[in-house]
Amino acid sequence: MGIGQAREHAPADSKTSGSGSREEGARLDRAAVEQAGRRLADRVWRTPVIRCDQLDARSGARLWLKAENLQRGGSFKVRGALLAVEHLAASGSRGVIAQSTGNHAIAVAFAARQYGLPAIMVLPSDAPPAKIHRIREAGAQVVTAGTLLADRVAAVAELRELHGYDVIDPYQNPHVVAGQGTATAELLDQTAAEGVHLDAVVVPIGGGSAIAGACLTAEGRGVSVVGAEPQAVPALTTALRAHRPVTVSARHTIADGLRPDRIGALPFALAHRAVAAVETVSEEAIADAMRAAFLHARLVIEPAAATALAAALEHASRHGADVGVLLSGGNVEPSLVASLLTGQEPFAPHTATV
Amino acid sequence: MGIGQAREHAPADSKTSGSGSREEGARLDRAAVEQAGRRLADRVWRTPVIRCDQLDARSGARLWLKAENLQRGGSFKVRGALLAVEHLAASGSRGVIAQSTGNHAIAVAFAARQYGLPAIMVLPSDAPPAKIHRIREAGAQVVTAGTLLADRVAAVAELRELHGYDVIDPYQNPHVVAGQGTATAELLDQTAAEGVHLDAVVVPIGGGSAIAGACLTAEGRGVSVVGAEPQAVPALTTALRAHRPVTVSARHTIADGLRPDRIGALPFALAHRAVAAVETVSEEAIADAMRAAFLHARLVIEPAAATALAAALEHASRHGADVGVLLSGGNVEPSLVASLLTGQEPFAPHTATV
Repeated sequence: MGIGQAREHAPADSKTSGSGSREEGARLDRAAVEQAGRRLADRVWRTPVIRCDQLDARSGARLWLKAENLQRGGSFKVRGALLAVEHLAASGSRGVIAQSTGNHAIAVAFAARQYGLPAIMVLPSDAPPAKIHRIREAGAQVVTAGTLLADRVAAVAELRELHGYDVIDPYQNPHVVAGQGTATAELLDQTAAEGVHLDAVVVPIGGGSAIAGACLTAEGRGVSVVGAEPQAVPALTTALRAHRPVTVSARHTIADGLRPDRIGALPFALAHRAVAAVETVSEEAIADAMRAAFLHARLVIEPAAATALAAALEHASRHGADVGVLLSGGNVEPSLVASLLTGQEPFAPHTATV
Repeated sequence: MGIGQAREHAPADSKTSGSGSREEGARLDRAAVEQAGRRLADRVWRTPVIRCDQLDARSGARLWLKAENLQRGGSFKVRGALLAVEHLAASGSRGVIAQSTGNHAIAVAFAARQYGLPAIMVLPSDAPPAKIHRIREAGAQVVTAGTLLADRVAAVAELRELHGYDVIDPYQNPHVVAGQGTATAELLDQTAAEGVHLDAVVVPIGGGSAIAGACLTAEGRGVSVVGAEPQAVPALTTALRAHRPVTVSARHTIADGLRPDRIGALPFALAHRAVAAVETVSEEAIADAMRAAFLHARLVIEPAAATALAAALEHASRHGADVGVLLSGGNVEPSLVASLLTGQEPFAPHTATV
């Protein structure tokens, strides 16, 4: 699929992408992910694929955990951000703006610093303080705007007007989507090197860049792409039923990274034709998966990653014997982990939110 | 060095080893570790070596973290335990006994179950409940005996008399020591595959099997072996000064895995001639390293592993530009992690102990 075609699917969101004219001629397909992987070599960690007997036993499948919680910046999003910022820097950009629930902003801030570009990040007002801290640590400015995707998109438009910076959309930018796909591509390569053909990969769904990238790289490889989203924010489930992106009425979820209440148009276009299934999981299952990752796999994962793990623990055996799980990030609020470990109830929203 | 020679160095502890006559003819050297590695292939995880920008920045060196906290059974000790139990099972053993601060017992219990052997594990009365739970989960019987190494050794002798089982000493058994060495051997192989020659490896010191194994495998490779122990239990530091193992007057440490108050004779004999340095670290530094591993490397490590990390954070740059760290295990009490994450004081002993 060419970028032009992808963008035709994305009229509603295309105004949030500030890089339109710069992308002409790029293609967005499995080869684009492979090319992205080559460009990222030695710039991101080749994160390990981790096995865990106890999680295998619970899921009834062999789980291959792609530990992007161990990635630079604490999530897979640095992959796409580096490519997008690199492209803009080469095009003479004066600065970058991005809206994000957190990890895309951390990643863009990290990448912008590498290229010496100023960066302004727009986050929801209830974003985890740990994520905001990491963005500021990377030298970017943080602006908060409401709790809904639409609030952030509006703020981005204003800031873009004011500063003349380029917007790096977290779900629509083709460099971002290709870059995010490299996490799944690496997982498939790493398991293949062990002589294992994955039957499925489970990826969490926020705005959709992870699943979009996974769909691209899984193309023609005989691996099912399974989405995982909180029951509280069933953005892709609802969109697939409606055959178009829909703004859902989101309830509170501890999976702060998966709070976007609408799937991006580009991810939807890719997922619509390629996704094998979308599993929704409860807040309790997400919390339980975070605990299980901690206690059994000794990994610190954030609730978005735990959403994919929860879906795998509950449903992996329906999708095959060897199932990959994208542990998307590890930027979690320490107090949330502490409360999970001491058996406290983490589900009540501690701030006003959607 | 042959086993006979090694055992000559170990008269004080040799009574705790029940496998004397079964070990004749084995050699304990770098080749033994390599052979152990071949025997362990496909039976233990080849755990990843993890990098972390923030920890590098703090240490002033590039740290290569061997994540044995992600190992089967939650620590590197499964390596030696599998080999020792395999050997005993092949020799017609009726069951196994081991004393341990926790991880060796978890590992022997895990291995014994694989070979269908009954297992009795002797732990200190203040062992972390999480470790005791894991031993019972693996089907072994747990006996507690005092808080000192001597208490456990006495209990082992009684139980051996009573049951006629074989004792798997955690520090003296040559299969154990060679097996534990495979963790460091893998680390050296994995970094070499990245084109990196490690200047040093930092390993934690409890009874001494980790450093003994590291000394064996580092032989002739031009890599310094650096020990790390809590200031509260300076068993190797004291022994090196005295030129023989010494029972130290141990204070309380959160590093439950490093509470043995005397270095094993075999580990001492190996370390005495091969160790480049021993760094001692404070309780505060151990707690801080656990927190840093959690927040920056997104790894759950136990305080013993954090002792090695703490030594690396404080002293790595003195030992070279590329420094390996054996993150020995991840069997940590969740409540300890919760208290560290919420800024509570974890240093006061919660039970009577040494």
